[in-house]
Amino acid sequence: MSVDGFESTALFTDRYELTMIDAALRDGTAQRRCVFELFGRRLPGARRFGVVAGTGRLLEMLRDFRFGDDELRYLRDNHVVDAETLAFLEGYRFTGTVTGYREGELYFPGSPVLTVEGTFAEAVVLETLALSVLNHDSAVANAATRMSIAAGDRPLAEMGSRRAAEHSAVAAARAAYIAGFGATSNLEAGRLWGIPTMGTAAHAWTLLHDTEEEAFRSQIEAFGLDTTLLIDTYGIEEGVATAIRVAGPGLGGVRIDSGDLPTVAAEVRAQLDALGATGTKITVTSDLDEFAIAALAASPVDAYGVGTSVVTGSGAPTAGMVYKLVARQDAAGGWVSVAKASSDKASKGGRKAAFRTLEHGTATRELIVVSDGFEEVQTAADQPDARALQVTLVEGGEVDAGALGPAGVQTARAHHLRAREELPVRALALSRSDPAIPTVFVDVEG
Amino acid sequence: MSVDGFESTALFTDRYELTMIDAALRDGTAQRRCVFELFGRRLPGARRFGVVAGTGRLLEMLRDFRFGDDELRYLRDNHVVDAETLAFLEGYRFTGTVTGYREGELYFPGSPVLTVEGTFAEAVVLETLALSVLNHDSAVANAATRMSIAAGDRPLAEMGSRRAAEHSAVAAARAAYIAGFGATSNLEAGRLWGIPTMGTAAHAWTLLHDTEEEAFRSQIEAFGLDTTLLIDTYGIEEGVATAIRVAGPGLGGVRIDSGDLPTVAAEVRAQLDALGATGTKITVTSDLDEFAIAALAASPVDAYGVGTSVVTGSGAPTAGMVYKLVARQDAAGGWVSVAKASSDKASKGGRKAAFRTLEHGTATRELIVVSDGFEEVQTAADQPDARALQVTLVEGGEVDAGALGPAGVQTARAHHLRAREELPVRALALSRSDPAIPTVFVDVEG
Repeated sequence: MSVDGFESTALFTDRYELTMIDAALRDGTAQRRCVFELFGRRLPGARRFGVVAGTGRLLEMLRDFRFGDDELRYLRDNHVVDAETLAFLEGYRFTGTVTGYREGELYFPGSPVLTVEGTFAEAVVLETLALSVLNHDSAVANAATRMSIAAGDRPLAEMGSRRAAEHSAVAAARAAYIAGFGATSNLEAGRLWGIPTMGTAAHAWTLLHDTEEEAFRSQIEAFGLDTTLLIDTYGIEEGVATAIRVAGPGLGGVRIDSGDLPTVAAEVRAQLDALGATGTKITVTSDLDEFAIAALAASPVDAYGVGTSVVTGSGAPTAGMVYKLVARQDAAGGWVSVAKASSDKASKGGRKAAFRTLEHGTATRELIVVSDGFEEVQTAADQPDARALQVTLVEGGEVDAGALGPAGVQTARAHHLRAREELPVRALALSRSDPAIPTVFVDVEG
Repeated sequence: MSVDGFESTALFTDRYELTMIDAALRDGTAQRRCVFELFGRRLPGARRFGVVAGTGRLLEMLRDFRFGDDELRYLRDNHVVDAETLAFLEGYRFTGTVTGYREGELYFPGSPVLTVEGTFAEAVVLETLALSVLNHDSAVANAATRMSIAAGDRPLAEMGSRRAAEHSAVAAARAAYIAGFGATSNLEAGRLWGIPTMGTAAHAWTLLHDTEEEAFRSQIEAFGLDTTLLIDTYGIEEGVATAIRVAGPGLGGVRIDSGDLPTVAAEVRAQLDALGATGTKITVTSDLDEFAIAALAASPVDAYGVGTSVVTGSGAPTAGMVYKLVARQDAAGGWVSVAKASSDKASKGGRKAAFRTLEHGTATRELIVVSDGFEEVQTAADQPDARALQVTLVEGGEVDAGALGPAGVQTARAHHLRAREELPVRALALSRSDPAIPTVFVDVEG
């Protein structure tokens, strides 16, 4: 989908969005100003808080959300929309406003994570792209932050690329880093987002050589004593003995990728110590999730590598957020709050301003001020000891450059770690629970 | 990562693969001929069979697996590999052979889904890309085939793009289609892979208009009576009444996206029939998975739309396949079978030939003939009433063009539906179970 030097993101879109634009251009509602809101009705997996991730990626893709020749030809040849709509799409540039939570911010049920304002036609068409990015990246971040909390000060690396689709793997590495991981195995995440990368050798390295000893010797010759040797290809005890025989007690580290880790880690530590390798670090990497990491807190482990569980959201592979029309202009230009009324999927209409109230620096409530008109709603000034959660991400179609690229990732990571400091202690537990703080809606006159 | 008119896929790679190449170029093992095998140790989710998907995508990305200027600059600037390895990567083209299961084929624990033969250096570097693609796409296909079986002859559409990362959504639509779905909401999947697309309107369409009646009237004016109206924005009974009042009894369809579907579908059918709209079809789309679809078998439902559960693998978001060195040359050029010996992650060394044995057309065993050398293993001719499962996908670096693009998708879908016909009836049940047929390994002399 590369056109004129840009890779169009415009067809990461569900067909019904274009169908609605088609009909709305005919009946005149396409130009009605609208407010769409992206939020989660609940925290998947009964987690205690969520982490917004993907915002910077979304903003970059919003810049490339233009229908190029390939896209228009497909839509025309397949009669997806009529000629008038094709002309509209050909000229499409998002000219509206996007406000939202900073990337890395915490969120709770009902938090207005992203608010898109523009004409119906220009805002409705972003539904799928916005949800795809934020639902995936936030699902990874939601899991990653728990692993990061469980790991404490021990280094934590993401190495799950092989268990995620190839582009998702890059996004997952980015989201995990924002939520507290320190490195990734994924090279494209390093190149594109500036995330530190790591990795030395797989079992194939040992199997490629005629003996484990030859493999270890070759690795040390190539990378020096500070490398990490994978010691469980044949037997762990034999692997440790071989490693220290080859490297001496100054070996940097060993990696264990199988077995019952609390038991094996203790045995390997004792063996290393007995061999004088008291400074050799132990990295474990076998099927870890936040619970396994927590269970290793008292074990002599120096670093963790996490694969499958972090890139698949550790049981909750999507954040399950939705994108809903919450306010629009009527035929006379007045603003109307709107919401679906279905019993099991009701949502709350109206434009929203969100604050996190704090007591002595600890979060107490997710306070959401709802305007049933479209006036400016209350600001943080009206909420003593509250932090305003929304910032402007796109203004008049112009994207906030600070949220983009590797710099945006660093800002998001730093913001996440600060926001996490505000959580009450009970939020850090791993068991299923209600959200750590309640979401409180306050209605004001429009 | 677009370079010289191609989008490089070379950094969809874990760092340790390049690190191993770096060390192997120094010690001379980089040029040893190797056989890597991609397989699953078990079927995730205790399913009864698996579905291979992603092969065609992988082959297209294999063609673009070349290190361009951007990739090489990143690796050099970040000291990932040394100058000799950079030179090797700059000239990298896969020149080996890939054999594997046809896309759409069924697989079982231990099935050699993909076999990559080449030098160590050229084959080891494909680990992450191959696993990313096949693990994701097969996870979706594994779930989709069960939904397709549960839906029977009723049309089934994939509409989960919003619950998957943006590129994964396209791959998921493709995998679901191969595994029996009939259409997708995802436009890029339509453009790129030729998959039929569908979709008419969201709740935002109704909320955009001053009344539900205006929304319905406008939609019918735009698309005619054959369109599908979403009738649950306010009240379902009122929505149906309004739909038929506006459209008359010739309305094409209604869609229900909330509520207890067996109950609601029956009520809507009765109401439609009472209004004379006996030909109006009912599509349901609310949080469906294979179990919910099966539970609706006796309900008056005409079509299903499935979102979250299919794109996230319905509880098993990765197929969990691994990529292991199973045979290699030694220093003298002889072939050696190799395998990791760890108790909980042992694998079976040796090159493998795979057959599905049949009795009266029904599958009875996954027969895997293992050669401990590197001779040609037994062929289908030695196995009466057995079907050879592997085909050549890449020969001397040249990709089988028939597996690519929309034509490859159609071939894979047809093959899947044929292969599914061979399954014993017990394989079609949805409950957790052992695999439907046993995997039997037979060792032969090399």
